Amino acid sequence: MRAAATSFVVVMPRTNTQVVLARRPNGNVTTDCFATQTVDIPALREGEALLEVRYVGIDPTIRGWIKERGSYMAPVAIGEVVRASGVGVIVATTDQQKYPLGQAYTALTGWQQYRVFEPDENPPVTPVAEGISLLDAMNWLGQIGMTAFLGVLDVAKPQPGETFVVSAAASGVGCLAGQIAKLEGAKVIGIAGSDQKCAWVVDELGFDACINYKTEDVSSQLKAHAPQGIDVYFDNVGGALLDVVLRRIANRGRVVLCGDLSTYDTDVPDVPLYNLKYLMGRRARMEGFNTLDHWGRLVEAHAMLIGWFQAGLIKRRDDVVLGLDHAPDALVRLFRGDHLGKLVVQVAP
Amino acid sequence: MRAAATSFVVVMPRTNTQVVLARRPNGNVTTDCFATQTVDIPALREGEALLEVRYVGIDPTIRGWIKERGSYMAPVAIGEVVRASGVGVIVATTDQQKYPLGQAYTALTGWQQYRVFEPDENPPVTPVAEGISLLDAMNWLGQIGMTAFLGVLDVAKPQPGETFVVSAAASGVGCLAGQIAKLEGAKVIGIAGSDQKCAWVVDELGFDACINYKTEDVSSQLKAHAPQGIDVYFDNVGGALLDVVLRRIANRGRVVLCGDLSTYDTDVPDVPLYNLKYLMGRRARMEGFNTLDHWGRLVEAHAMLIGWFQAGLIKRRDDVVLGLDHAPDALVRLFRGDHLGKLVVQVAP
Repeated sequence: MRAAATSFVVVMPRTNTQVVLARRPNGNVTTDCFATQTVDIPALREGEALLEVRYVGIDPTIRGWIKERGSYMAPVAIGEVVRASGVGVIVATTDQQKYPLGQAYTALTGWQQYRVFEPDENPPVTPVAEGISLLDAMNWLGQIGMTAFLGVLDVAKPQPGETFVVSAAASGVGCLAGQIAKLEGAKVIGIAGSDQKCAWVVDELGFDACINYKTEDVSSQLKAHAPQGIDVYFDNVGGALLDVVLRRIANRGRVVLCGDLSTYDTDVPDVPLYNLKYLMGRRARMEGFNTLDHWGRLVEAHAMLIGWFQAGLIKRRDDVVLGLDHAPDALVRLFRGDHLGKLVVQVAP
Repeated sequence: MRAAATSFVVVMPRTNTQVVLARRPNGNVTTDCFATQTVDIPALREGEALLEVRYVGIDPTIRGWIKERGSYMAPVAIGEVVRASGVGVIVATTDQQKYPLGQAYTALTGWQQYRVFEPDENPPVTPVAEGISLLDAMNWLGQIGMTAFLGVLDVAKPQPGETFVVSAAASGVGCLAGQIAKLEGAKVIGIAGSDQKCAWVVDELGFDACINYKTEDVSSQLKAHAPQGIDVYFDNVGGALLDVVLRRIANRGRVVLCGDLSTYDTDVPDVPLYNLKYLMGRRARMEGFNTLDHWGRLVEAHAMLIGWFQAGLIKRRDDVVLGLDHAPDALVRLFRGDHLGKLVVQVAP
């Protein structure tokens, strides 16, 4: 047993390598929008702690944050560390009660080696529970898992026998959302951008069907696979595809606006939505969704996801890129769309 | 006291004057889209009854029903009686138990003098309760009142202090919706098409403000009147105005798609919606709505509306046109928008 203490003397790391925003994208994001810099780590002040970042996310939402106008959070400024989810471990602390040494957390770490935790972080940082790997914590047991879990169970609420369509079906969120809907008894139809992705979600994950939007006519395929209409559309991409799906929405259908990947990586104005009238005619609902509003369900969601995984009922996949300096090209690759599952960067190569 | 009987011999009216669809509108609806005809009334069959129609509605939804593709119901065929809500009294019956002589009903009567009730009407016809005038029954205690009541209380659910915006604010549904939201403690901002309408809803009905969309910049006016954003948009018009409002939707805001008046009376393709991203970013909701899904609340809604009216808490206004043959020009006038409150035709001049 050790005596209680209010501060800990540790060997502080001296420098912090960061990827910062060098310029805003003009059209598709390119690696020269980013620069790497190394800065000194300041001494911790009362109540602060230092997180050594192990993995950072390569998430579509980053593309929104580096736009001039930002999205639901303020835009990342030029010269500022690129905002991103991440996971790491406390390596120095002035408040052992609040931020114990060695404790792992998921947080908006940004693309950097170290992140100073303030006494009151907002949005709150989340301790990683005993026995959960860092990679799992930031993927299917983190933001990705929460998004799929809460988006499906608390917003979309598919009922047994209903038809559930999910876009970006092979993405981290998409592949989990489809699997959770399947557990709820829905008929699940994926939409993805390659035959390889479609084969994966049907053959490995048990989706009922998958439409390759690059080679197939989505509208007629939806009609074939969902002759009674679409009860739930879990939308990760927005744009023209949303318009196509709205045309076939069922009475009392639900569209969960989880992401609009198709509009993130471009300066082209948003594709207009012509089929909104079907939302009214069919008394359907379209709803924006962000896990920020659902933190209260975190513990329960964790427990259920772990239970499902241990029972072999859900599968997931990580695509891990080595080295913080590869974060920019991983983001470029994200929008090219040739990955399966959740794309992350392991900070130390 | 009279003995029970299974059928009643009455003096049946012989002929029925009807307004039928002569051709579909090409652009704005015009009176020559309609024709008047007089047909013989067939003998009633077992279980049928004959309703003498007293008032018929001049409703925006009629414009959707006479389009080639219809809307949430099948389109009215060429030569068919124009579908419309209405109210009347049973003047002949073969089932005194089910359709008693003298009983008033609201129903989809169509634009005609008489309507045969089948043994099983679907959608169901609604008896008018004792003590309620026929005009009230088809307006603020009928479809119009139910739409406003259920759309506000069961779908939009404004909370005290929230900002509630309603378009077509001087229409039958709009003026009631705003007043009900006001009773719920919301700040109510109307949008209407003339200074006269705006003055009416503010001075007479107690709205907090009203924007004349024909002469004012709606976006900047909304910003001025709703600096914290719009919590509820009760949308009766759709189109470009919806897009303007979406730009200023609040976090967790609700858009109730009650009608898209602006798109009814035209063949011009729907105005695209560019600001959908705000729905996602602000975790807001947009929902189609139709009272067909809420019949269970009819009795309660009636009771509450009557209570509010008797207490002087809500006001309403009818604009009554005399004579069935004026139904077509009343519909044209509806889309010109120079009426206040609910527009109806009294069948017998």
